[in-house]
Amino acid sequence: MNIKEITQKVKSDSFRMAALPEDLRNGALKRIAEALLENKTAIFSANSEDLSRGEENGLSSPMMKRLLFDEKKLAEAIDGIHSLIALPDPLFQTTLNRRLDDGLVLRRVTCPIGVIGVIFESRPDALIQIASLCLKSGNCAVLKGGSEALGTNKALYDIIYEAGLASGIPEGFLTLIETRADIGELLDHHESIDLIIPRGSNEFVQYIMNRSKIPVMGHADGICHIYADADADAEMALSVIRDSKTQYAAVCNAAETLLVHQKIAPVLLPALAAKLPDVELRGCEKVRAVIPCSAADETDYATEYLDYILSLKIVGSLDEAIAHINKYGSHHTDCILTENSKAAERFMLLVDSAGVYQNCSTRFADGYRYGFGAEVGVSTGKLHARGPVGLRGLVTYKYRLYGHGHIVADYAEGRKKFNFKDLD
Amino acid sequence: MNIKEITQKVKSDSFRMAALPEDLRNGALKRIAEALLENKTAIFSANSEDLSRGEENGLSSPMMKRLLFDEKKLAEAIDGIHSLIALPDPLFQTTLNRRLDDGLVLRRVTCPIGVIGVIFESRPDALIQIASLCLKSGNCAVLKGGSEALGTNKALYDIIYEAGLASGIPEGFLTLIETRADIGELLDHHESIDLIIPRGSNEFVQYIMNRSKIPVMGHADGICHIYADADADAEMALSVIRDSKTQYAAVCNAAETLLVHQKIAPVLLPALAAKLPDVELRGCEKVRAVIPCSAADETDYATEYLDYILSLKIVGSLDEAIAHINKYGSHHTDCILTENSKAAERFMLLVDSAGVYQNCSTRFADGYRYGFGAEVGVSTGKLHARGPVGLRGLVTYKYRLYGHGHIVADYAEGRKKFNFKDLD
Repeated sequence: MNIKEITQKVKSDSFRMAALPEDLRNGALKRIAEALLENKTAIFSANSEDLSRGEENGLSSPMMKRLLFDEKKLAEAIDGIHSLIALPDPLFQTTLNRRLDDGLVLRRVTCPIGVIGVIFESRPDALIQIASLCLKSGNCAVLKGGSEALGTNKALYDIIYEAGLASGIPEGFLTLIETRADIGELLDHHESIDLIIPRGSNEFVQYIMNRSKIPVMGHADGICHIYADADADAEMALSVIRDSKTQYAAVCNAAETLLVHQKIAPVLLPALAAKLPDVELRGCEKVRAVIPCSAADETDYATEYLDYILSLKIVGSLDEAIAHINKYGSHHTDCILTENSKAAERFMLLVDSAGVYQNCSTRFADGYRYGFGAEVGVSTGKLHARGPVGLRGLVTYKYRLYGHGHIVADYAEGRKKFNFKDLD
Repeated sequence: MNIKEITQKVKSDSFRMAALPEDLRNGALKRIAEALLENKTAIFSANSEDLSRGEENGLSSPMMKRLLFDEKKLAEAIDGIHSLIALPDPLFQTTLNRRLDDGLVLRRVTCPIGVIGVIFESRPDALIQIASLCLKSGNCAVLKGGSEALGTNKALYDIIYEAGLASGIPEGFLTLIETRADIGELLDHHESIDLIIPRGSNEFVQYIMNRSKIPVMGHADGICHIYADADADAEMALSVIRDSKTQYAAVCNAAETLLVHQKIAPVLLPALAAKLPDVELRGCEKVRAVIPCSAADETDYATEYLDYILSLKIVGSLDEAIAHINKYGSHHTDCILTENSKAAERFMLLVDSAGVYQNCSTRFADGYRYGFGAEVGVSTGKLHARGPVGLRGLVTYKYRLYGHGHIVADYAEGRKKFNFKDLD
């Protein structure tokens, strides 16, 4: 079958997915977790082949780390599936139940989005997360993983697909696309694919967004800020800044820019330089008058380093910090360090980002850490889903209207009047 | 100012809009309602000029009817504003309040989308609805109305803008774009505009969707179906079909296709032909064996007539009806006529549309009739907002995270464990 036929088949199965009862979906997840464990030898063997090939091709050490799928990653993935099973069903939830008039009842009921295309990087555990989130939420997933993990992905896919089918889930629930050439074709089938979630480099996500008519959910940049307010606790500030910058520098929720209120700069900046000896600091003129460091320019403030580099700027006020973040930021996650709750409230209201934090690390921006069980990605868009996207972001709703022959002419011509009442 | 400068100014004001307290926004709405009433002579006079020009230019009679803005339309618009004031604030609502660990609290709080561009047809009352919905939800609106209503729109805009400013709302809350050429430029400024809502013809909406990187919310087609099930009440069916087709034929929520179960076709179809003498019926071969009518082809089932034409098809089962609707429909609003609640449930689960109805007219798909006060449009997209879009569809949310120096390293390295608990 070509991509067009495949996506049409998936689309047609997606309607059946929308009606699968919760116990069938949870039962399949349980069986998938068991099958992964039973077939772990095959998975690890496929993974060592991918790792050898990666080493031959000279993959970087962070890349090799992401590619590795071992006992620990498997145990985490299986834990993840069990916590998903335990979460409440995102489907068939009534979020509005309103009587419009005698005998005319409106309900808003959640349902799957339909067919979701996910293009993800070289982390085999991402395949398990995405497949299980989509299954729990009644969506069909069409997956394309990084080519470095080809063998591991294929092994994982085969196990999950067979276990799903054996549990009574329609075939179209999970499809693996293997060649990069197919991505372009996938993007053309907006009649069959409801949503694309691209994960990967800024350039790659931009390419997908510009290329497709299908709605795209995700983020290109992660330029996260920390603003150390005049009323920041200096010791806490140092610890949170270090964690935000260095706990895992190569990810989207790591901090890239530190804004410091002029009042605490003379105390905070020297202590920071001492606390982060392995981070290259790049500051504005005012910063360089306090500590020695290289100069930051406009480009720095608009750059996602994904590395041990931090740009610094001294600001004269909370509002100057907010304006900087709204101008240079990527609307991902930004944090204020302050003991002043009024300043925190103003920051949270006025900073236009998916995550607005007080006194904690930007690295908390993650579906697992939010208690969502897992995530398919992080959205910096403002529509539908913002921030880490878990089950809630994978469903939409329908309006159901139940009547007894109600017609609009009666209301338009004044014979009847609406009588709205929200029911329990 | 050129469009770029205008949209940048609006964007910058949009951050301030996000913090305006409810009483300020409601106070402005009250003042706007008063100002519209006080200045009605100026509005009606601008409208008669538009009407004269329309007559000279030979506008059709439905177009002239939409263009008319008289005492009745004004009273309805003012009623609409008062019902919006009475609705609960869509902003600052906490929709998730979760303790992640001791002293680390996550909240999901609603906030405005930001800057919304609305391009609407020649109905001056739409300007009032859109402006007041956006103001209540803390959004800045950039409006472009139909050129036929230029004078009326300008009069309404001036009154609403002045009343808003006098109530303390930032200037950028409402902008009127007057020339069609500016639309193209507006679509280029995705850094300043968060959402485009186009209303109008299928071709126009398609043009906007293909032309812009900005997310678009709305619908192109409204191909609504009625399926008369084997267990339909024939008398109720005739009344609901007539209302859905003829109560206002030129709108998106009017029915275009009637699917009839073969069991009730011999009874229903002749009665329908008698009940709808002014509607042109186009049927499949099986229909034409029961009643005389012209032939329907594939094109008919994919056409939004917006006219006194109804395509008809006889189906052998509920599932055949569902498959037809999912294939030819536009995912707007579709209705089953049946006394069988199992059939209704199956129809509602499997039909992939924003509105799925039982035993009532498709014409109920409207924000006012759903009790939303008003609507900015109807969305056939599945992301963010589906169906009539009122206040709820005009807000998004931020995740706020409140900590006390919490860092991720503690959790990643096993010194602390998450302890999720949803708070009241």
